Amino acid sequence: MKDTICALATTQGGALNVIRVSGPDSISIVDKLFVPRKGAPLAERKSHTVAFGDIYLAPGELLDEVLVTIMRAPHSYTGEDSVEISCHASSYISQQLLLALFENGARQADAGEFTMRAFMNGKMDLSRAEAVADLIASTSRASHRLAMNQLKGGFSEQLSLLRNKLLTLTSLMELELDFSEEDVTFADRSQLLALCDEIEGVMSKLVNSFSIGNAVKNGVPVAIVGETNTGKSTLLNALLHEDRAIVSDIQGTTRDTIEGVMNVGGVTFRFIDTAGLRDTTDVVERMGIERALEQLTKSSIALWMIDPLQSVASIEDVAKRLLPMCRGKRLAVLVNKCDVTDPIALSNMMQHGKELVEKYADGVEWNSNDLWAVSARLATNLDKLEDFLVRAAALPEISSHDVVVTNARHYEALKRALANIHDVKRSLADGISSDLVSESLRAAIRNLSEIVGEVTCDEVLGSIFANFCIGK
Amino acid sequence: MKDTICALATTQGGALNVIRVSGPDSISIVDKLFVPRKGAPLAERKSHTVAFGDIYLAPGELLDEVLVTIMRAPHSYTGEDSVEISCHASSYISQQLLLALFENGARQADAGEFTMRAFMNGKMDLSRAEAVADLIASTSRASHRLAMNQLKGGFSEQLSLLRNKLLTLTSLMELELDFSEEDVTFADRSQLLALCDEIEGVMSKLVNSFSIGNAVKNGVPVAIVGETNTGKSTLLNALLHEDRAIVSDIQGTTRDTIEGVMNVGGVTFRFIDTAGLRDTTDVVERMGIERALEQLTKSSIALWMIDPLQSVASIEDVAKRLLPMCRGKRLAVLVNKCDVTDPIALSNMMQHGKELVEKYADGVEWNSNDLWAVSARLATNLDKLEDFLVRAAALPEISSHDVVVTNARHYEALKRALANIHDVKRSLADGISSDLVSESLRAAIRNLSEIVGEVTCDEVLGSIFANFCIGK
Repeated sequence: MKDTICALATTQGGALNVIRVSGPDSISIVDKLFVPRKGAPLAERKSHTVAFGDIYLAPGELLDEVLVTIMRAPHSYTGEDSVEISCHASSYISQQLLLALFENGARQADAGEFTMRAFMNGKMDLSRAEAVADLIASTSRASHRLAMNQLKGGFSEQLSLLRNKLLTLTSLMELELDFSEEDVTFADRSQLLALCDEIEGVMSKLVNSFSIGNAVKNGVPVAIVGETNTGKSTLLNALLHEDRAIVSDIQGTTRDTIEGVMNVGGVTFRFIDTAGLRDTTDVVERMGIERALEQLTKSSIALWMIDPLQSVASIEDVAKRLLPMCRGKRLAVLVNKCDVTDPIALSNMMQHGKELVEKYADGVEWNSNDLWAVSARLATNLDKLEDFLVRAAALPEISSHDVVVTNARHYEALKRALANIHDVKRSLADGISSDLVSESLRAAIRNLSEIVGEVTCDEVLGSIFANFCIGK
Repeated sequence: MKDTICALATTQGGALNVIRVSGPDSISIVDKLFVPRKGAPLAERKSHTVAFGDIYLAPGELLDEVLVTIMRAPHSYTGEDSVEISCHASSYISQQLLLALFENGARQADAGEFTMRAFMNGKMDLSRAEAVADLIASTSRASHRLAMNQLKGGFSEQLSLLRNKLLTLTSLMELELDFSEEDVTFADRSQLLALCDEIEGVMSKLVNSFSIGNAVKNGVPVAIVGETNTGKSTLLNALLHEDRAIVSDIQGTTRDTIEGVMNVGGVTFRFIDTAGLRDTTDVVERMGIERALEQLTKSSIALWMIDPLQSVASIEDVAKRLLPMCRGKRLAVLVNKCDVTDPIALSNMMQHGKELVEKYADGVEWNSNDLWAVSARLATNLDKLEDFLVRAAALPEISSHDVVVTNARHYEALKRALANIHDVKRSLADGISSDLVSESLRAAIRNLSEIVGEVTCDEVLGSIFANFCIGK
């Protein structure tokens, strides 16, 4: 960490680009390239000031007119001397400027390295550093609020409260251990158990909040299932190409069956277009179907699309395989192609769909209003689908004080800590000796400490910051 | 211009976003949303300082931790009070921040409005303002240098020299006019003519530089022509998907037959994949072919692709129509599909190609080395093509003092001024009275003044700045 790093912090395409430089030599390196229009060189300037001037690649070789901001250690994002160069948004200029910085002793920053330095220099704990990445990725009010709550340290505070409680419990236990010869019981076992219950309650709440946190951050998973050619992809396109913001289109190559993420009524949904379901002897197609069913298992909402032009028997075939897998999920049945189907046939098919759900969808969250006719092609009755989705997601409003776990790493650490507490409770109940109990307590504390980065090995740190973008 | 404008100056996807605010209320508007971590509110801070703090949408509703830079009039890009807010690069955050700025009295900036204000406030002349847009679009050393020379005012200086010469000439003429009663000739006609020649020389040089300037800025146009299915598109793909930077892929819809822009050996080329040439009765196809031939006319380099698997007669048919249209252009002939063609047939076809060029390519710049076999599919012998292209483009190296016209508006104005000077010369030669001559001189001055924006109507200004991106 003695070296100086630099990276482009913006992307090509705007009116300006910002290049960040951080490290002990950042100011002197930029000073070699930068000639202010008036006043002193950067090295003599105060922290938190901006200078207008020119970047020269060589004497007489002007690259750009820029604004240069300097922030001196420790009063910067990274806690080190830092410089931000705001230049015209030409790809040529930002490339040449980076090359010139490299030549003068800076090196390209790794992904997340600026934030990693902020963590290393004690500017923020690990869970708050991770919140920065979430904040950048936030696209909705809810995901923004979760990330901001975490960045502001709400989660760290909760963890610190939990740790203090665990430390109290441990000290009580170990005190008992120290005086074990004298057969004195300092800690009343029932008092210890009560404290355990309290800790368990807080932890469970945090662990359980992950399903909400994950849905807010990554989107509520919605599987679109049905026979091939029922119009699943058309539905997806109709949903995604509406006026509202498309959050992203995830490539089929990277996440297989996932097709699109979008925001409906402030809630982010992750739509999963699954391969058509049908009996097949083709090995590859069968793998696709298995993956579709696996995606269905992971989703919390299922949309079953029926093509009324297909035969009653083939629809029943699908229902038989599909509906039992929707146990515990919210289900909606969409009878598609209402624009090209004879009204009587359509009405019959809707009746048929209802009967199939009643026959096969045991344990599925469904009521008879959750079946209706649509035209994916003409986007008919899709407003009804949006209402359904928002109702089905049923995400609670998140206030600026709610602490919700959104990070899979935190979730895993909390689950391990919770298991440790279960061990403690069991040991206490079984009258197992205090030294073994305190072992489990120490494991719980260690697991919690990992979240804020008090005990975290380099490898874990590396993988956390590698998920950041370059320049952050 | 009494109002305050704001816009996102970066694009989504980086680590940070910058929102620019400019206008008399910019500091007070941001002050309403921004709470510094320490120190005075923005209104009390000095120009060119940076403050770290929080943006609140409402009391208790924290949006982001940001860096806020203030620059006070006239020491800012626009010449007005300006604020730049550097926030985390979340689309949600930048949207909400812009909305909050709107609510507090700022409005969304039009494209180029920041630079237009800089021009209006006398921070730069019009040709330099236009150079800002070119600078942002620059993707090569040469295009960057041209834009930078213009931004640094090299072109404005040349124009001002020209104007001074024209003013001297005019005053000499008008002095003569004032004393016409007395039949005194202050200005020696041959001296006037010599001055005219000098002005004409400088102007012609500038006008002629446009062909280089345009090639550097927009790319050297290269037409790829040939029968359908000779592998023109495969060649284009092979060229564009190499490791080197793809500058852009222009949509067929916007510029019809243009397919791709790329950089070869520091030179930007604009490749034009033309519709296959063949006799057809189909009206639409015939229109496509006409357009292809039109594109060929506009290009300075032509690549003729031959498919050795096609018949000798049909290739001659194409040569007969195509080659006479390449007069004055650099031509290369590529015999494609060398990977799947029998060596003897290939060699025969190369011989045939040579004979066709010698027979039909009258006035075309071609020598017998400019015909070779390639495989577009396997990218065989494309290095030879790249060498050819760089040689054929023959663009001069541009130094940091060269003044080259890159802007079509400037080019047109210079051409009009040059025509005025021709009128002056003709009038002088014909002995036409001084008052008529001075009329033409005044027109020439007016045309030059338009370039730097001394006399330019609002409509022209609007169209110049509309070509900028938002936030600049």
